[in-house]
Amino acid sequence: MGITAKGRATRQRIIDGAAAHLHSAEPGELTLDDVRAITGTSKGQLFHYFPGGKEELLLAVARYEADRVLADQQPHLGALTSWPAWQRWRDAVLARYRAQGANCPLGSLMSQLTSTPGAAEVIRTLLAQWQQHIRAGIEAMQAAGRIRLDLDADRTAAAFVAGIQGGVQVLRSTGRTDHLDAVFDVLLTHLRTSPSNAATAPGYGS
Amino acid sequence: MGITAKGRATRQRIIDGAAAHLHSAEPGELTLDDVRAITGTSKGQLFHYFPGGKEELLLAVARYEADRVLADQQPHLGALTSWPAWQRWRDAVLARYRAQGANCPLGSLMSQLTSTPGAAEVIRTLLAQWQQHIRAGIEAMQAAGRIRLDLDADRTAAAFVAGIQGGVQVLRSTGRTDHLDAVFDVLLTHLRTSPSNAATAPGYGS
Repeated sequence: MGITAKGRATRQRIIDGAAAHLHSAEPGELTLDDVRAITGTSKGQLFHYFPGGKEELLLAVARYEADRVLADQQPHLGALTSWPAWQRWRDAVLARYRAQGANCPLGSLMSQLTSTPGAAEVIRTLLAQWQQHIRAGIEAMQAAGRIRLDLDADRTAAAFVAGIQGGVQVLRSTGRTDHLDAVFDVLLTHLRTSPSNAATAPGYGS
Repeated sequence: MGITAKGRATRQRIIDGAAAHLHSAEPGELTLDDVRAITGTSKGQLFHYFPGGKEELLLAVARYEADRVLADQQPHLGALTSWPAWQRWRDAVLARYRAQGANCPLGSLMSQLTSTPGAAEVIRTLLAQWQQHIRAGIEAMQAAGRIRLDLDADRTAAAFVAGIQGGVQVLRSTGRTDHLDAVFDVLLTHLRTSPSNAATAPGYGS
C-alpha cells in the first residue's frame, strides 16, 4: 500500500498525540480509547494506520520517544569536543531528566511491550547510537590531546550509557536525580583524570 | 487473623514457587493459574494467603526477589574492607547477572506492578539498603587509610548503585554484561584514584 503525504501526516499526528499523553502527569497504561479521544481519530483510522493494532502503535510511539531521548541532548551530544561542551551536555541531560521526573514515557511503553517482537531492538538501537555519540566525543578529545590515548573510548562510552541509564532508572523509583548526578560526576572525573593503569596507581593501592 | 507456622510455610511455598517460575527461561507474565499449577494450591488457598489477589502475591514475590538481590551479593557486600574484597564483590555481581541474562525477575514483576501502591517502595528500599552497604564499605576503607577522607562516601555509593542498576538495565535489552563490566571498572578506579579536586587536576585539564 502506498502512503500519501497526507496519510503520513495523519499517522504522525496519532503518534504525537499518544506521546503527548504519555508525557502528561500520571498517564497510566495507554489505551486505544485514550489515543482516539486525544487525536480525534476513529477506530477505523487507527487500524488503517496501525494494522497491527495497539502493539504496532505503541512500538511506533516507542521509536519516536527513543529518537527524542537523543534529540533532547542535541546539539551537545553531537559535539563533545571540549570540557565546557561535556559540562553543557551533562547539564542538559540532568535538566531533561529533572523535568521528566519519575514518569518515564519510554519506560512505561517498554513495560507494556515486554512480549512484543521489535521492542527490545528499539532500546538496543537507542543505546548503541547513544554510546556511539559519546565514543565520538571521547575520540575527538583524544585527538585534541585532552584525554589520554590509552583510555578505551568505546568501553568508557559504554560506562557512560550504563551510568546514565541507571541514574534514570533510580529516578523512576525515587523521583530524584541525585544518583544520576553522582554517577555523571564519577564518569566525567574518570575522563579527566583516569590513570593509565589504576591497579598500580600510587598513593591508594592495596 | 493469626497465622500459624504451617500457614506461614504454605504462604512462603507459594512465593517460592512463583519466584522459581520467574527465574525460568521465557517466563512471560505471571498468572494466578501459573502459580496454582506450580505450587499445587487451590484458588481458595491462594486467596486465603493473599486476600488482595494477584497484586498482593506479586508484591510479596517482588519483596522476596529484592531481598535476594542483596543476599546473592553476600558475604562480599557486607564486608568491603579491603581491595581484594571489593574485587570479589565485583566478580560476584558480574557472575550473578551474567547467569541471570536478559531475564530479570524483579524487572518483570515491576512491569506488572506499575500502578500498585507499595511497588515503588520495594525498589526504593532495595536501592537504599544497597547504597548503605557500599557506603559502609567506603567508610571502612577510609578509616583504614585506603580511600581519601574527602571522597563523599554516600554520594559515591549512590554512583555505584546507579551504575550497577544501569548495567543490569542494559543487560535486559542486550543480553550482555559489557556495560555493567565497564561501569564497574570506572567506579572502582574512581575509588582507588579519585583526585581531591578533579576540576583542577593537572595534566588533562581544559
